[in-house]
Amino acid sequence: MKAIEWMGNTAKILDQTQLPHKEVFLELARYQDMVSAITELKIRGAPAIGVAGGYGAALGALKIKTASISEFQREFHTVCQKLAATRPTAKNLFLALERMENTASKITDIKQAKEILVAEAIKIHNEEIEATRKLSRLGAELIKDGATILTHCNAGPLATTGYGTALGVIIQAKEQGKKIKVFADETRPLLQGARLTTWELKNAGVPVTLITDSMAGYFMSQRKISCVIVGADRITTNGDTANKIGTYSVAVLAKENNIPFYVAAPTTTFDLSLASGELIPIEERKANEVTHFQGVSTAPEGISVANPAFDVTPHRYITAIITEKGILRKPFEEGIRRMLK
Amino acid sequence: MKAIEWMGNTAKILDQTQLPHKEVFLELARYQDMVSAITELKIRGAPAIGVAGGYGAALGALKIKTASISEFQREFHTVCQKLAATRPTAKNLFLALERMENTASKITDIKQAKEILVAEAIKIHNEEIEATRKLSRLGAELIKDGATILTHCNAGPLATTGYGTALGVIIQAKEQGKKIKVFADETRPLLQGARLTTWELKNAGVPVTLITDSMAGYFMSQRKISCVIVGADRITTNGDTANKIGTYSVAVLAKENNIPFYVAAPTTTFDLSLASGELIPIEERKANEVTHFQGVSTAPEGISVANPAFDVTPHRYITAIITEKGILRKPFEEGIRRMLK
Repeated sequence: MKAIEWMGNTAKILDQTQLPHKEVFLELARYQDMVSAITELKIRGAPAIGVAGGYGAALGALKIKTASISEFQREFHTVCQKLAATRPTAKNLFLALERMENTASKITDIKQAKEILVAEAIKIHNEEIEATRKLSRLGAELIKDGATILTHCNAGPLATTGYGTALGVIIQAKEQGKKIKVFADETRPLLQGARLTTWELKNAGVPVTLITDSMAGYFMSQRKISCVIVGADRITTNGDTANKIGTYSVAVLAKENNIPFYVAAPTTTFDLSLASGELIPIEERKANEVTHFQGVSTAPEGISVANPAFDVTPHRYITAIITEKGILRKPFEEGIRRMLK
Repeated sequence: MKAIEWMGNTAKILDQTQLPHKEVFLELARYQDMVSAITELKIRGAPAIGVAGGYGAALGALKIKTASISEFQREFHTVCQKLAATRPTAKNLFLALERMENTASKITDIKQAKEILVAEAIKIHNEEIEATRKLSRLGAELIKDGATILTHCNAGPLATTGYGTALGVIIQAKEQGKKIKVFADETRPLLQGARLTTWELKNAGVPVTLITDSMAGYFMSQRKISCVIVGADRITTNGDTANKIGTYSVAVLAKENNIPFYVAAPTTTFDLSLASGELIPIEERKANEVTHFQGVSTAPEGISVANPAFDVTPHRYITAIITEKGILRKPFEEGIRRMLK
């Protein structure tokens, strides 16, 4: 069940908005289709939208009709800009598009341009798969036999196109024979935990209990949680981490209850251009995600709503950051700079 | 728009499960109807289910057919037991039923029994209205002009049959001319915040912004919240407070961000028979409240679910407890014992 797959000259994605009840695949032929798919969260998760950005750029490249290299690069730049404008928080998207543009800038033979860009998008995808495979294996060492792990949102195969980050670590620990259990926060407003994390863990044979976001603290205070592990959308130089709204709350509750809080992310999630988390742009999404669920209204008409899609967890709440190049511990900044050199 | 009203020999309630979209009133003639109404949360909120318990007992009394006082008391005891078995956490319900049974135990003339018990239920209701009126006025002193207040679940007129506790304080502060704003947690799984708190505050002309439970910490970290105020379902001798699931998380986040955390409750919510919060029974409700969102399924079929309806906030997280007899500050135990003497 692949989140995204390159089909030669189209990209096939699994529509994540329809899970867990319907498994619907969409074949995207134009970069504009990928723009919509990312905006509407049909494909989501920081590593996955990096990969989707690469393939989206490749789709755009395939449709450009010019014999001029500079004209090609101009048009390709527009494609990448449209893709970059879909979602502001995850670093992986921008990094993938930078790689695609950088590759385009080095093209010397227009006849090879499309082939080279498609190859680069596939390379980005393969590298992401390999990174999540490695970090899952490294991170699994942190999970003790018998552990009950809390996770927030969804950072599994669907979110990464590979093995998953937070869920990759969990599934790898299970495959090592450790007896583990998971509590999954439902993750309002869009219920990625209820819809996707439970589905992926059930498929992987990991025992999972669904709870509302408001219950995580309760189970921590009851000593039912051994550790917390989440993914990330952007990690700044000092280790501050943007992730799905509610992650900060989980981290504070973990600290208050002396529970280790782990972040799992490939190095493509790091942003050394930002010193700290308050500089990360936080996406504000539409009010109806909060006031409605699948068309059912839950609040009075016309009520004011706030809907930030992410929050920032300051690095002081994070026990360790798991990457494909190793596990970072405090002080994070030194380790992050060394790792990304 | 009264949550409950005594109609002579029936009780009329507003069905809170249908709000905010439908205002449906139900006329209950038998105590069994009140048992169902409380169990199904058609009437909910700790002070309100105390009042509903009293009227439910009165309904039961009206149907008892015997000329024997001891037989009457036996049957009345069964009625009270059934009402007490509806929900385990809120103290107010048990206190109201104890009062009704105590009143029944003193009856010497069977001809007056029903009249006396109806009068006692009405007295419980009137005292509750008066208590919330007083505590709202006292608590409003804690709310500063220009404050932005976070609240969790619903502790307004609907939850109390009177002026409200947390929302009573907020509405009173507004009526004093203070410019205030409210952030309302939606309060999964049953969305009392989204459905009821927004509706009551909108009706009262208080500006309110609806957020998901997972966003409360974010807005605290952004310095957007001046104080938190919530109701309570049971307060033990040391000040530990049971309230809607998620309250503990909000309290921890408030402490972490140096934001005052207030509990507002009438003295009927206190339980001096319990030394501390870990002794409070926590109601576990049905899985489908978590796996469904207003009737729409959000999770894979057959997934495991936990659904504790309440959690306990240890007293160390509480800045002050607002009651009709005064505002308590730490150390709470001394003040609570003195107040309830």
